[in-house]
Amino acid sequence: MPGRRRVRPPRDYAQLVTRPTLTGTPDAVPTVELDELLDGGDLELIDRWLAQADVVQIADELSRLPRDRRAVPFRLLGKDRALETFELLDPSLQQELLEGLREANVGQLFEGLDPDDRARLTEEMPAKVARRLLAGLPPNERRLTSTLLGYAEDSAGRLMSPEVASLRAGMTVAQALDRLRTVGRRAETIYALPVTDDRRRLVGALGLRDLVLADPATLVGDLMDTEVYSARVDTDQEEVSRLIREADLLALPIVDTEDRLVGIVTVDDAMEVLEEEETEDVARAGGAEPLRRPYLATSILQLARSRVIWLLVFIGAGAVTVNVLAAFESTLQAVVTLTFFVPLVIGTAGNTGAQTATTVTRAVALGEVRLDDLLPVVMREAATGFLLGAVLAALTFGPIAFLVDAPIATVVSLTLLIACTFSALMGSALPLLAKRIGLDPAVMSVPLITAIIDASGLVTYFLIAIAVLSP
Amino acid sequence: MPGRRRVRPPRDYAQLVTRPTLTGTPDAVPTVELDELLDGGDLELIDRWLAQADVVQIADELSRLPRDRRAVPFRLLGKDRALETFELLDPSLQQELLEGLREANVGQLFEGLDPDDRARLTEEMPAKVARRLLAGLPPNERRLTSTLLGYAEDSAGRLMSPEVASLRAGMTVAQALDRLRTVGRRAETIYALPVTDDRRRLVGALGLRDLVLADPATLVGDLMDTEVYSARVDTDQEEVSRLIREADLLALPIVDTEDRLVGIVTVDDAMEVLEEEETEDVARAGGAEPLRRPYLATSILQLARSRVIWLLVFIGAGAVTVNVLAAFESTLQAVVTLTFFVPLVIGTAGNTGAQTATTVTRAVALGEVRLDDLLPVVMREAATGFLLGAVLAALTFGPIAFLVDAPIATVVSLTLLIACTFSALMGSALPLLAKRIGLDPAVMSVPLITAIIDASGLVTYFLIAIAVLSP
Repeated sequence: MPGRRRVRPPRDYAQLVTRPTLTGTPDAVPTVELDELLDGGDLELIDRWLAQADVVQIADELSRLPRDRRAVPFRLLGKDRALETFELLDPSLQQELLEGLREANVGQLFEGLDPDDRARLTEEMPAKVARRLLAGLPPNERRLTSTLLGYAEDSAGRLMSPEVASLRAGMTVAQALDRLRTVGRRAETIYALPVTDDRRRLVGALGLRDLVLADPATLVGDLMDTEVYSARVDTDQEEVSRLIREADLLALPIVDTEDRLVGIVTVDDAMEVLEEEETEDVARAGGAEPLRRPYLATSILQLARSRVIWLLVFIGAGAVTVNVLAAFESTLQAVVTLTFFVPLVIGTAGNTGAQTATTVTRAVALGEVRLDDLLPVVMREAATGFLLGAVLAALTFGPIAFLVDAPIATVVSLTLLIACTFSALMGSALPLLAKRIGLDPAVMSVPLITAIIDASGLVTYFLIAIAVLSP
Repeated sequence: MPGRRRVRPPRDYAQLVTRPTLTGTPDAVPTVELDELLDGGDLELIDRWLAQADVVQIADELSRLPRDRRAVPFRLLGKDRALETFELLDPSLQQELLEGLREANVGQLFEGLDPDDRARLTEEMPAKVARRLLAGLPPNERRLTSTLLGYAEDSAGRLMSPEVASLRAGMTVAQALDRLRTVGRRAETIYALPVTDDRRRLVGALGLRDLVLADPATLVGDLMDTEVYSARVDTDQEEVSRLIREADLLALPIVDTEDRLVGIVTVDDAMEVLEEEETEDVARAGGAEPLRRPYLATSILQLARSRVIWLLVFIGAGAVTVNVLAAFESTLQAVVTLTFFVPLVIGTAGNTGAQTATTVTRAVALGEVRLDDLLPVVMREAATGFLLGAVLAALTFGPIAFLVDAPIATVVSLTLLIACTFSALMGSALPLLAKRIGLDPAVMSVPLITAIIDASGLVTYFLIAIAVLSP
């Protein structure tokens, strides 16, 4: 197979991606979907659909089908296209698909995967199944995958491909090209070429471009960059991926503790890690756990499970607000009008906190803000919160004074000013503090911060009310 | 320059990325930052710091400095490293930096950029400055940049590099490699090689890997894939970038309306587009407008401006809840206890809506859910909401019945059940409907949906209260 490029006719695709809609994924046959064809049950029609679709589309459609309907169309694919499609599926779906196939096909698909993809799929499988499948591999493939499985989850070691094409500094360009002709087909990439010394220690790197454009008699050692990025096998996958994005790399050599080259991480795998990470951050920011599988392939029970924990946290926070309100029952009974502004006050405090936490969490994720920036960040945010609180206080005072009365307007305006400042302060400090004690900043994020701020906004409101309204 | 790879010593870096912290960006000298050196004002120390840092670090540090402090360290960089650093900066910072430099340096930097980066920077500049700079370019460079500027903003045309190395089907592999030796240095990439006919129409593509591994006498036409992905110049940048990620491409050929090759989009530019898009989605989900510049390079006024509009929306929604509460004033006066559960009810409804909206918006962004999935998605979410509502109702009934009384517990439980179902329904339907009428689903998202749901949860609560509590 020619590397990891997928193919389909340019003409169709050009029409396709210029559709006026903004759908992220190209769907070539929006009128007839695989789903409907399966309802019809006409195998020949399904076969024809599969023949004119490309593997990205097929993988896409399979991800939209319920679990028990994926096996039939998949089995209709030819061997090569089946493998190409399989490679594009989410590991959770790969695992479910394998359960529906005969042993021989399973072994074939498993063997056809790249070692790094195989390691990721193995994580999803019951240990017994994984062991049996690994035992069925040719010795060399088994060794490669076992090596990867030896590294910690989420480490660069699990993400890298051990099939790395490397050069020696003493080779000439002509010798290097000869070497690539022998090892190049199997290697994950030959576009970024690490250069090692005779003890396999990384001493430089070279792009295939430089090799192709150079005089054949030049030494690789004279041509290579001696200063290259690399990462250790035990580095976090996300960190490696961000470096690849930030420094615009095609691939990053991975070394062991003694600087020996052991693998390479390519940009496509880095993009997948970042996409998964983003999905996780976004889910947590919205108060849900990430699904870890395509949306339509997720059952209602799985959806509910991903949300119930956070809802219980919110209910717990809600219990606190109930107690705050109960504590101020006499004040509420005396001035029922105060009740009207409870949602407004809580909402504004919560929203300011959410805005701040979102901005700061994102800046941390992008590496724009670091841990030792706590003080300047919190000060900036408190100032921003004060500014926004002042604007809101000024805007709300008039209408409330006119419609209710001036004392209530004073209470609401003062509360908005203080609550906005405090919420912005908490919204920026909490994610940074969470990170300092080693938590994912997205966990201590929008929903939890909102819950924490709700009650404090309410207490502020009543304290100010008592101070202003009591004679 | 050897393409877009950046360099630094492997040893240092290996130490660096294995630090136990999870900071996204590697900082080589965490003890001394550029900021502190600038406070000291010792130019020689600054110079030494710059000499041992790599360009990614320097760009990072510059992004953290206030606007008026960036020019000095930048001017201390040598010409080549200055350009490499400049290329890594956000366009908003590039533009501000240029204002602080002398005309001659500005021209040099501007000319040194790739045409696509130059087009992006030009968008940030006052039209007069941009025109003058463009006029100072050599004719060929000016033509390339002007071509890009002729395409619509956010189109693939603006993103692509017009400097594409392409082959002809009739060439032998040896001829193709010769051609690359002449045009290869200037081209954006030579790893993905589009193949055209004699009218420059795209007819296939080839990886440099295939070319290097093939027999020199083979014809390119026999070696190439005839089915390749491509996109039209007027395609949305985000769509192009998602395709590159989904299909694991290194580059995507861009064609005009007549299928003629006009440029190429590389994976590094695609990653930048996706990062910006994610930042936008995350910001909107948290109720803020995206900053469009690094966090620490953003002033407090700019921060406040990015949030004030959404806060006003929330205040508007808050005014609705005030009116709802005022409408039920007599009910509240009769049973003050009802007030206690107002934040709980609103909060749960809002949170369920936020969870749903977040999940659905993300699934749409990833292309897992399409517009015509409205009905199945809404039904799934309503079912999930009902399930969650039932769990919460069952959990809260006991404590409230014990601490307050059974009728109030009935009211709260029933409200939770109905509000959760309704919120999940709205939270899934609104983003999809927004998209159908052409709005970015992230705009009609978490904050706005929460605001809409708040009032409806409250109305439900009081209607149920009146029904249950009135004799």
